[in-house]
Amino acid sequence: MNVIEVIRTKRDGGRLSNEQIGWVVDAYTRGVVADEQMSALAMAILLRGMDAAETAAWTRAMIDSGERLDLSALRRPTVDKHSTGGVGDKITLLLAPLVATCGAAVPQLSGRGLGHTGGTLDKLESIPGWRARLSTAEILAQLRDVGAVVCAPTEGLAPADRKLYALRDVTGTVESVPLIASSIMSKKIAEGASGLVLDVKVGSGAFMKTTEQARELAEALLAIGRAEGMRVTAVLSDMSVPLGTAVGNALEVAEAVDVLRGGGPADVVELTLVLAREMLAVAGIDGPDPATVLASGAAYETWCRMIRGQGGDPDAPLPAATRVHEVRADRDGVLAGFDAYAVGLAAWRLGAGRARKEDAVAAAAGVRCLAEPGEPVVVGRPLLELHTDDPDTVPAALDALRGAVLIGAVPIDDGAPVRGPLVLDVLR
Amino acid sequence: MNVIEVIRTKRDGGRLSNEQIGWVVDAYTRGVVADEQMSALAMAILLRGMDAAETAAWTRAMIDSGERLDLSALRRPTVDKHSTGGVGDKITLLLAPLVATCGAAVPQLSGRGLGHTGGTLDKLESIPGWRARLSTAEILAQLRDVGAVVCAPTEGLAPADRKLYALRDVTGTVESVPLIASSIMSKKIAEGASGLVLDVKVGSGAFMKTTEQARELAEALLAIGRAEGMRVTAVLSDMSVPLGTAVGNALEVAEAVDVLRGGGPADVVELTLVLAREMLAVAGIDGPDPATVLASGAAYETWCRMIRGQGGDPDAPLPAATRVHEVRADRDGVLAGFDAYAVGLAAWRLGAGRARKEDAVAAAAGVRCLAEPGEPVVVGRPLLELHTDDPDTVPAALDALRGAVLIGAVPIDDGAPVRGPLVLDVLR
Repeated sequence: MNVIEVIRTKRDGGRLSNEQIGWVVDAYTRGVVADEQMSALAMAILLRGMDAAETAAWTRAMIDSGERLDLSALRRPTVDKHSTGGVGDKITLLLAPLVATCGAAVPQLSGRGLGHTGGTLDKLESIPGWRARLSTAEILAQLRDVGAVVCAPTEGLAPADRKLYALRDVTGTVESVPLIASSIMSKKIAEGASGLVLDVKVGSGAFMKTTEQARELAEALLAIGRAEGMRVTAVLSDMSVPLGTAVGNALEVAEAVDVLRGGGPADVVELTLVLAREMLAVAGIDGPDPATVLASGAAYETWCRMIRGQGGDPDAPLPAATRVHEVRADRDGVLAGFDAYAVGLAAWRLGAGRARKEDAVAAAAGVRCLAEPGEPVVVGRPLLELHTDDPDTVPAALDALRGAVLIGAVPIDDGAPVRGPLVLDVLR
Repeated sequence: MNVIEVIRTKRDGGRLSNEQIGWVVDAYTRGVVADEQMSALAMAILLRGMDAAETAAWTRAMIDSGERLDLSALRRPTVDKHSTGGVGDKITLLLAPLVATCGAAVPQLSGRGLGHTGGTLDKLESIPGWRARLSTAEILAQLRDVGAVVCAPTEGLAPADRKLYALRDVTGTVESVPLIASSIMSKKIAEGASGLVLDVKVGSGAFMKTTEQARELAEALLAIGRAEGMRVTAVLSDMSVPLGTAVGNALEVAEAVDVLRGGGPADVVELTLVLAREMLAVAGIDGPDPATVLASGAAYETWCRMIRGQGGDPDAPLPAATRVHEVRADRDGVLAGFDAYAVGLAAWRLGAGRARKEDAVAAAAGVRCLAEPGEPVVVGRPLLELHTDDPDTVPAALDALRGAVLIGAVPIDDGAPVRGPLVLDVLR
């Protein structure tokens, strides 16, 4: 095999054979194919595409680059969820304990945030004592004892994906549906769950800005999962406004706990229940409805055990910001909504997210929305709270909201506000 | 400036600004932009293209990455020639002394061969004692004293091009007209000559297989030269059959000397005179016709001084191969020609070329054509001589001729042979 031949094949619009794909992914993982060769190939793939069979082979090669978790010793059906990332998306924190309480085992190997969308591990790390890194034995023990685990992927899972993702991140080759789909699915398949529900986000705060793009990605994800014999469902959900009222790390944990204790914003509850029902369907569990389980407080009990299992104290106070800055309405009218991207960007600048992988995040930083889309507001009414420990970050956050979006993001018009449905489609 | 923004701009089909191009080429040369980022950009440029203004800016940035030879102290007009590479193309060896004898100064900073086309420096190095590496002072002294120099580019000329060319070579990003054109022209412009004649080869033995492709490259080269205020002309010439009868290093030097002494194959003489006249026109020299100068033996005298100036002995015997294998006609008929690519490949395999930059070439290896297109032949008539010092290379060379081409390359048909014109077009 010759890497230049492989690159040329794709560059000139040809199909890569399974042998070429298996070889090039393995050779790249072993360092035989160099970074500059793989990035040229990634650009050719981005511009020329890969068909479903090529994408399935690429995913398989990435899975084969490492180990696969063996969950067969568990007595329960295994099911996982993956979100393509949004602003205020704390649903994983709720789903893992809820679906575990309903009878499934939920191994949620999660990531950290980069850019304007938060990472599940960053959020959970705001809980005092909680740790993200578990050994394979600890993951299996917690799945057996609690039924739910949210942690970092072990080193051995899909190392090719880890290496390739870091490369794509610095070479302008992220935005390729086949490469995005194979990256997501290689990790999820290596994780060993037999079922998976995908939450594909659509809108300004999401990676996919239009329903068409989101549907294309969802179809690619489903095709890979099916080719691997996995039970998969994809939900398309709105990400044009933030999910819930809290965006940040500790702020989102607090909102998730509110929901687990029977409160919280309606949209967070709605999406949690939709996804939980899909996960149970995929797992083949026909038990009590998740709404009943949530209302009973049993999911909150599981949450506490899940957090304690990883060294965290669910009763400890969460970090609070030393500085809170209010953004107020500048005219009367009806609030049409907050733009998800602008709010995500503001939270990022306040310290909730990271610009580079090696950066730390501020646990207490973020944005709280104080008004709901559709609400009438008057001049001076507080609309947003900016939380930070570093007052120097506030101007940049205000800039993100004002310059980029606030006028459009918080449009106080006389016309009736329109917020579309939260769940746009379900692809089974 | 952010390299990912630059990559994305081109990836998504946009134009790069002069500032973006200047920055990215400089940052790559300094190691601030990494190889994997530049190769992704090169692939995006290959697939999306660059317009004339972008290509001119790219070339300018590569020139600015290093120094530029200052030939202003020379009393004569300066003019150079560049060939895009062919099989048996020894024209530089003839043109430099001929055009210098006609009154121009000819600084021919040349390259080595890679693949099936030979390199001018490799050919000259078969002359005992001759050395390719000269200092800038030596180059200027020889131009002043002899009027012609053929040598390796100094380290300081267009270092960005050297680095980028090596990268493109291993990342499947060679075949981009804007990148090829800017690579050629950045070196030629940095070399300091005020005029340039381009010999753009067309056919199986050339990089450009069709006249359309060659014309596209020629136009790109001319546009860059004109943007830099250079006087430039492009000749499109046939490379479907080898040029002359000798392909190899010492074999080609011997043929060039034959021509300088009044003999040699007609096609080599014809192309030499066409290019010499274009070089003199570009240099604004209206003296005796190059044919007269060649016949006078004065160009041969200049050749001897040029070789001696670089330590070579023009009277020393050239290396001869220890083994010569004949290929004979297997039926009666008329010889239609030898396929340039097959002959080039055979010479390469005999040791005349290199597979990797660090390989050495065999001075005596190569192919001699013993019959001319259009000649009637009978079974058993010798057609080709394979020269090598390593008998183990003969089967691979025969394979290149037989398997790939000999039946088609040496088609002995009853129909009349057709050889098209040598010079296909001249773009001024």
